[in-house]
Amino acid sequence: MTVRVTVWNEYRQERTDPPVTAIYPDGIHAAIADGLRESGDFAVRTATLDEPEHGLTEAVLADTDVLTWWGHVAHDDVTDEVLARVHARVLDGMGLVVLHSGHFSRIFKALMGTSCDLKWREDGRRERLWVVDPSHPLAEGLGESFVLPEEEMYGEHFDIPAPDELVFVSWFEGGEVFRSGCTFRRGRGRIVYFRPGHETHPTYFDANVRRVIANAARWTAGARGSSHTYGNRPPSEPPGAPPA
Amino acid sequence: MTVRVTVWNEYRQERTDPPVTAIYPDGIHAAIADGLRESGDFAVRTATLDEPEHGLTEAVLADTDVLTWWGHVAHDDVTDEVLARVHARVLDGMGLVVLHSGHFSRIFKALMGTSCDLKWREDGRRERLWVVDPSHPLAEGLGESFVLPEEEMYGEHFDIPAPDELVFVSWFEGGEVFRSGCTFRRGRGRIVYFRPGHETHPTYFDANVRRVIANAARWTAGARGSSHTYGNRPPSEPPGAPPA
Amino acid sequence: MTVRVTVWNEYRQERTDPPVTAIYPDGIHAAIADGLRESGDFAVRTATLDEPEHGLTEAVLADTDVLTWWGHVAHDDVTDEVLARVHARVLDGMGLVVLHSGHFSRIFKALMGTSCDLKWREDGRRERLWVVDPSHPLAEGLGESFVLPEEEMYGEHFDIPAPDELVFVSWFEGGEVFRSGCTFRRGRGRIVYFRPGHETHPTYFDANVRRVIANAARWTAGARGSSHTYGNRPPSEPPGAPPA
Amino acid sequence: MTVRVTVWNEYRQERTDPPVTAIYPDGIHAAIADGLRESGDFAVRTATLDEPEHGLTEAVLADTDVLTWWGHVAHDDVTDEVLARVHARVLDGMGLVVLHSGHFSRIFKALMGTSCDLKWREDGRRERLWVVDPSHPLAEGLGESFVLPEEEMYGEHFDIPAPDELVFVSWFEGGEVFRSGCTFRRGRGRIVYFRPGHETHPTYFDANVRRVIANAARWTAGARGSSHTYGNRPPSEPPGAPPA
Repeated sequence: MTVRVTVWNEYRQERTDPPVTAIYPDGIHAAIADGLRESGDFAVRTATLDEPEHGLTEAVLADTDVLTWWGHVAHDDVTDEVLARVHARVLDGMGLVVLHSGHFSRIFKALMGTSCDLKWREDGRRERLWVVDPSHPLAEGLGESFVLPEEEMYGEHFDIPAPDELVFVSWFEGGEVFRSGCTFRRGRGRIVYFRPGHETHPTYFDANVRRVIANAARWTAGARGSSHTYGNRPPSEPPGAPPA
Repeated sequence: MTVRVTVWNEYRQERTDPPVTAIYPDGIHAAIADGLRESGDFAVRTATLDEPEHGLTEAVLADTDVLTWWGHVAHDDVTDEVLARVHARVLDGMGLVVLHSGHFSRIFKALMGTSCDLKWREDGRRERLWVVDPSHPLAEGLGESFVLPEEEMYGEHFDIPAPDELVFVSWFEGGEVFRSGCTFRRGRGRIVYFRPGHETHPTYFDANVRRVIANAARWTAGARGSSHTYGNRPPSEPPGAPPA
Repeated sequence: MTVRVTVWNEYRQERTDPPVTAIYPDGIHAAIADGLRESGDFAVRTATLDEPEHGLTEAVLADTDVLTWWGHVAHDDVTDEVLARVHARVLDGMGLVVLHSGHFSRIFKALMGTSCDLKWREDGRRERLWVVDPSHPLAEGLGESFVLPEEEMYGEHFDIPAPDELVFVSWFEGGEVFRSGCTFRRGRGRIVYFRPGHETHPTYFDANVRRVIANAARWTAGARGSSHTYGNRPPSEPPGAPPA
Repeated sequence: MTVRVTVWNEYRQERTDPPVTAIYPDGIHAAIADGLRESGDFAVRTATLDEPEHGLTEAVLADTDVLTWWGHVAHDDVTDEVLARVHARVLDGMGLVVLHSGHFSRIFKALMGTSCDLKWREDGRRERLWVVDPSHPLAEGLGESFVLPEEEMYGEHFDIPAPDELVFVSWFEGGEVFRSGCTFRRGRGRIVYFRPGHETHPTYFDANVRRVIANAARWTAGARGSSHTYGNRPPSEPPGAPPA
């Protein structure tokens, strides 16, 4: 089954900040989309903040199985209307893959209910991501750890609800650790948070990172379960028969 | 240690709806507060929607270890400002005990990130609550189940995140089940959702219900852990020494 | 992908107890296997207690993606050797679907670490299973609840570790509830416990029960993740460079 | 309330291996017991492998709220009888704090149901333990991280069930991470696994380590919940009245 992925990106720093442009001349979304297309079973489109309705119209979301989200400096420019629309689609079953600085996005905070705060340091040193749940589909095809030679540090405490599943934990050269791959279910939707991806490093060209994002897209688009109803309902069971 | 509890109540139906007044002439909050006072180790105050700032000023919240919340017909009358204030205090460590129709309160939905929807039926038939985690402090002193002879039904699916701990499951005479006692941690705060308490039934005079609410107040006010910091931080570990 | 399922059954009561023979003349395993074959994407074999090595030779297990387990009166006749072999295969990634009275099997108790005790009553009254996680693959294709018109009752407290995921909760006519559909991960293996299936009722011919067992077989046979190593290991990171 | 703690130790290497004797001349148990006594609200005794019944008679266990467990080279010398006795007491509500190489003890493996395998390296380099759940009682009174200047490394993957709560994650100088503070509930008992404590390092004299062990003893000895019954039971609810 082809999974329809919409890769959403703030797409501001790539247009104004030369070191970012140098790494992602076509935008971070282009690199993420290319990574997904490499794996062959995705129908990928992109959407960005400065498009009308941030590129996330009702029609686009209705045609999206999984939305990936990267934002950083303009979280508050996302309108209430689009926020509510995306939130409703996730609860209705659309997968959501939140990347890196998207931890502070309005949609992630709305789904988590917490501050989503953390420690950070832009030192461009080594990060090593360890798999702590080797049977999870998010880790499929990986080795037991992989290295990003230069990344921004994110450190604990990461103020999120206890994840439903913890798949990756990062080791940083400067002495910190971080829960880097977390899953959450909200409503009928599956959510993945995946940490790497600072805009000044070529992280979204890394083969392992691309594999994890593809795994996340497949997994969050997975089977959708049973039907259900809400609201005022008649009894499920009839009044009992009298005792014999 | 005395736990300081603020019992919050919407307090509208008790003043306008005779069948509700008949059961709770002084308001649902008075019944809940009385139940807590019976157990002796709580300092209890009450606050209601139509007081200034809904009775939840900065000073009151700063002096509150645990907030209990009952609301039903006027959830949307809670202001953005008070909502944000309560939300921040929970993340900072205040306990929160959400009761019955509080499932649709703004504060519970903001903390859960989901619709918090469910099935319901006002048929006043039997509810039996079963303990499914007998070692949990919420269940302390109870038997293996207890009955409320007449209650409103709430039925699954209950659209919440998977609770961190599931303590009670209700059986309803009409054929439904419900996850009636759930715990969640958000930020430094502990949250309990406890189902019973429709306004037309004397549920908050029931000895078992009062025991659970007292248990919940003690548990959500529990030990508060370690200190932590967020934001831009220097390396935790110095650069390594050269190989020997 | 075809999933290779081995349906294991104690197969004693069907041969000696007329009321059981009347319902399952070819054994409970035959009914379960037929249900799986109906859905078309399984390669099904059966194995029973009184075959050599209980039908679970190294070769059979090596050729098995998912093992389903039904036992009741002869749990202790399973040898230490076969127990250890099945346990090792589960930790190595084989799925395991434990059915009904299999809650007291040696393999389930060994994987859970608890007594796995519960309440029961052979009264043949109604059971209604509610979906409490409608997005889970175990519930795929079901409605929000389904009824078994006659079944044995199992009631809480069920002495298991908190399940990783809770998918079904049962309502019983006699007033009890039960966590009827639970998932656990142990090692690389996925485990499902699914409650219904007393030997004197035609439960394994029920379309909804068959659907859940097929869903469980697909899900426990799912993606298998990353590689990993254990034991004495050299440093993952080289000693650091000296400060500049 | 005074918590009655029994500190159990294999106590072999301290008597035969000079580098271990040099650090723990009176045994690891003596250092752990001293740490607990410092905090003043514990009644502490010790027990060791080579005492009759390993020092864990029925009478001792009946008089124990919390058992701490350190073992390393002689796990298999623990008898089936004592193993079964300790297992039963944990399920009945005794707390259990498993330390360091106790991950491979018979009792921990029996309670977990998994291999409990991991990576290790005796390189005596730095370990930094980070708090990932700052609201948990296990972390009470700590800072956001603490350092052990020399320790054995344990690395992921750690083959345990997903812990009910994850409180500490370790960073190791050689590039690994580890889930170092985990909680599990089994039966009525609470279990903590806490990683540090190799026999050639003075870890059990460290103030932070002692604090965590004291926190763990208090928390695993906590409130014990409700009563419950198992086995064949009459209906909880009477047959229903006929429809009106």
